[in-house]
Amino acid sequence: MTIEVVHIGQRLVRDDRVTTHVALVARAFGAKKIYMRGVNPDIKDTIKKINDKWGGDFQVEFIENLRRLIKEKKEKFKIVHLTMYGESINDLRLDKDNLLIIIGAEKVPREIYDLADWNVSIGNQPHSEISALAILLDRINDGKITKFTNAKYKIIPTKRGKKVINNELIKENN
Amino acid sequence: MTIEVVHIGQRLVRDDRVTTHVALVARAFGAKKIYMRGVNPDIKDTIKKINDKWGGDFQVEFIENLRRLIKEKKEKFKIVHLTMYGESINDLRLDKDNLLIIIGAEKVPREIYDLADWNVSIGNQPHSEISALAILLDRINDGKITKFTNAKYKIIPTKRGKKVINNELIKENN
Repeated sequence: MTIEVVHIGQRLVRDDRVTTHVALVARAFGAKKIYMRGVNPDIKDTIKKINDKWGGDFQVEFIENLRRLIKEKKEKFKIVHLTMYGESINDLRLDKDNLLIIIGAEKVPREIYDLADWNVSIGNQPHSEISALAILLDRINDGKITKFTNAKYKIIPTKRGKKVINNELIKENN
Repeated sequence: MTIEVVHIGQRLVRDDRVTTHVALVARAFGAKKIYMRGVNPDIKDTIKKINDKWGGDFQVEFIENLRRLIKEKKEKFKIVHLTMYGESINDLRLDKDNLLIIIGAEKVPREIYDLADWNVSIGNQPHSEISALAILLDRINDGKITKFTNAKYKIIPTKRGKKVINNELIKENN
């Protein structure tokens, strides 16, 4: 089961913390790749640095033609479109199949609603594409935490304060 | 059980979409109030408009002294600090008590780790205070969707497209 995400960004917004958060959520909760449109290209460097430090091989790809991507993907992936207007996540059972998850900051074209296998809402109140994606992935993962390989740094969960292992130092010391 | 949220913002950031998303997530997933520091004051108007349109009475309050707030709240609330360094959400059982949830964009003072009843991580990878808050609240709610009263508009979940009821028109027509 492979999960990929498509983010339809908000063109002309220069502060792209939202874009970065979307990509980080996709990565942290087990998606393999994010396709982005209308975003600051620096996001690729940001994610490369995160992968180098914290592990894994999460990919960012820029796209122009959303419709073409969806039509290509439809052969091997089910399409999930997150929208506050969709059916409740609590009333749906998504196949444990390859999933392409579409989230949008800007107005999503009507066609996407038709191309999607499921239009899914995480509540029917306005919140954030970041939170919607996070909750969807958490539900798909049955709450399990995604593990990452090849990390330079690893956090040891702790009651108070910060405990971080530098795997490179450990390697050097051995 | 009352849930409130404290957001320690990132001063000097002018695009405050992240701030807005944090407040919307707190509201959509059942918190009663958010205390904010270092944010654009327009957030109060934004949330007032959302309440008017989509219901409920979610409150925004600006604070300067975080330590004082926490010490006041400690009498009646348990303090949950969300941090990627904390104990895993999957290994903790939070009391079904009044909760004050602290999330930070900027570096959180060490003291907060000590004042918190729980330092909680949603995975130990970098993602977003928006996603961390959303998943914590979703877990606390046992996945139930929060309901809102006095909404002007209400979405009817639907397979394709958008179905929105205007409650005021319904009232006028009756």
